Amino acid sequence: MKISSAEDRFTVHYRLFGVASLREARDKSRLIALEQTVELPDDLVAPGPIRQHIVGQQISLKKLKDGSFESVLSYPVGTTGSEIPQFLNVMFGNTSIKPKIRVERFDLPKSLLKTFQGPRFGVKGLRALLKEPKRPLLCTALKPMGLPSRELAKLAYQFALGGIDLIKDDHGLADQPYARFEDRVPRCAEAVEKANRETGRRCLYLPNVSVSIPTLWKRLLFAKKEGAGGFLVSPGLVGFDVMHQMAVDKRLGLPILFHPAFLGSFVVDPHHGMSHYALFGQLARLAGADGSIFPSFGGRFSFSWDDCRQIAQGCHDKMGDLKPIFPVPGGGMSLERVREMLDVYGQDVIFLVGGGLFRQGPDLVENGRYFRRLVETSSN
Amino acid sequence: MKISSAEDRFTVHYRLFGVASLREARDKSRLIALEQTVELPDDLVAPGPIRQHIVGQQISLKKLKDGSFESVLSYPVGTTGSEIPQFLNVMFGNTSIKPKIRVERFDLPKSLLKTFQGPRFGVKGLRALLKEPKRPLLCTALKPMGLPSRELAKLAYQFALGGIDLIKDDHGLADQPYARFEDRVPRCAEAVEKANRETGRRCLYLPNVSVSIPTLWKRLLFAKKEGAGGFLVSPGLVGFDVMHQMAVDKRLGLPILFHPAFLGSFVVDPHHGMSHYALFGQLARLAGADGSIFPSFGGRFSFSWDDCRQIAQGCHDKMGDLKPIFPVPGGGMSLERVREMLDVYGQDVIFLVGGGLFRQGPDLVENGRYFRRLVETSSN
Repeated sequence: MKISSAEDRFTVHYRLFGVASLREARDKSRLIALEQTVELPDDLVAPGPIRQHIVGQQISLKKLKDGSFESVLSYPVGTTGSEIPQFLNVMFGNTSIKPKIRVERFDLPKSLLKTFQGPRFGVKGLRALLKEPKRPLLCTALKPMGLPSRELAKLAYQFALGGIDLIKDDHGLADQPYARFEDRVPRCAEAVEKANRETGRRCLYLPNVSVSIPTLWKRLLFAKKEGAGGFLVSPGLVGFDVMHQMAVDKRLGLPILFHPAFLGSFVVDPHHGMSHYALFGQLARLAGADGSIFPSFGGRFSFSWDDCRQIAQGCHDKMGDLKPIFPVPGGGMSLERVREMLDVYGQDVIFLVGGGLFRQGPDLVENGRYFRRLVETSSN
Repeated sequence: MKISSAEDRFTVHYRLFGVASLREARDKSRLIALEQTVELPDDLVAPGPIRQHIVGQQISLKKLKDGSFESVLSYPVGTTGSEIPQFLNVMFGNTSIKPKIRVERFDLPKSLLKTFQGPRFGVKGLRALLKEPKRPLLCTALKPMGLPSRELAKLAYQFALGGIDLIKDDHGLADQPYARFEDRVPRCAEAVEKANRETGRRCLYLPNVSVSIPTLWKRLLFAKKEGAGGFLVSPGLVGFDVMHQMAVDKRLGLPILFHPAFLGSFVVDPHHGMSHYALFGQLARLAGADGSIFPSFGGRFSFSWDDCRQIAQGCHDKMGDLKPIFPVPGGGMSLERVREMLDVYGQDVIFLVGGGLFRQGPDLVENGRYFRRLVETSSN
């Protein structure tokens, strides 16, 4: 293909910290534009189409109130090779190694959004599956690691009976000898199905599939056959492309929850990495998640109220025809916080309660019912 | 499997920053031990084998000179499910989301090292392939993105003729329309082979395979068939497990260079993430790299002399029977720096020069020869 100015371009909004002047910001931006594409010093890039079109183009550059700079660069969609790993590479590959640069957001043209497709279900699709058109949804996790499969299945049954909508494996359940994947998944799926027959509801069981590549698709298809209602995956552990492929694979066709394990370093430093909006909102959604799990403000992690609000925005904001997805705040939240969280996240939210659900009382079914009533009452 | 005290355990050395007292450090360590395993508050973990053996155990805790604390925790090998993604998860999954905690190193028992296997070639194996028993090796990259395959192949031919040992794709070359993988790889492999016939040497061509999962193995096998001499992969883009599987897959059996793209956020903040030693040394090696590429001190990135020395140590230090691997310093290094770098890295190093090789003069073959002479002279 000939390099052409007619090619669609996508933009990345970088935030530059510790920069003294507009001129320095311009120089730093130029280094990003080169680093992310040709990886050559400016004077070694010959005049011509590569210099004109492949090297990132400065779309805008402005100083923000806090003294940092916002630099918007554009790249041709061809640089991504239509693949998620290479999209990540152009967006932030080598530049991730430089301090004081943060990806705030990205904007993809319709052509590239269509290539990547995004979530299969999104908010509406998942609601349709569950036949719950309006209220916030409820999610919990099977834990702890170390329990045998039959005990995990017993928990799943109780939670499903109590009215939880989505029951996922704890993100630490993989294929350990204590509860093998092939033993655990059928038992838990069956337990949830049994509860569904009794309640008439449609609780889904989502096994964790953040596992090794050679067995991954075998396990995915096995889990589906055995009655899994969706999947939990940690792109930090297995790569964003795995989640993307799970979303587009028609043989699977089940909703996906994104887990943030091993991705914390991208957001812990507010002057580096990626914004909460871009990582847990935009990227999770672009790569096919139907719900994005993250540690909510007020829990045992350090995300602020504003970080969380931004994630919710990244889940909902217009991204071409990509479906909006659910923010899934969790991480040590307690039942008492439900009302406050509804104010931030709105109705299109999945509340993830793990430990808090055990703490309410000795009867797990009752704890689930309490949780569900609380959400139903608060959201009316 | 029954949970047992007889199970082998691996240890992770965490560094805790911003902690005021030994007591606070102990509390913080306990939270890590719980977070990385059972993910439940301490009071919800019932007495019994899960509490005793699954929850991380405190092996040591001490205050360091700089006021930070070093906390060593151990976990049973079973928690990893014998898979790289789940090993990463237990080591640092959710704790990555907490500020001021850094993984400094990990120590695996022989059983787990044997499971993961590590590099197939390592220093000795790669030297044997190249028939270069002693001197530092030379590596360069085909660039820029945007060049058609025939131009990239022309560069490859010149570099091989000039005496470069390893010619890799730039890490930004994927499967773009400007130079499709299936077009580029055979051309470049053939160009290097042609030069090898002329020089009698054994230069290797390593295409970049940081690509989408469904096509990955097809591309790997295709590249091998077409004469690729190894692979370049960015685990930050495709997951560490992909590299690991490439290393253990007998159908491939080719050396692997690890590229750090998209991993920078783990090391940019010295009070968070992972140490250079653990990430670019230990983990690269555990997951099967034969050489670990990183931006050397003095280049256009910000790694310090000490960061780089630590990476080299992580590549060489005793890790059971795992083979030592090559540190591959690059990132804007110039030819003049070779002597200084030999002092830091020793002879078992691969020098990666990209742009610098273009800068030396208009004749790329001559530039390669100059570079090679420089290394041969300096390392005598």
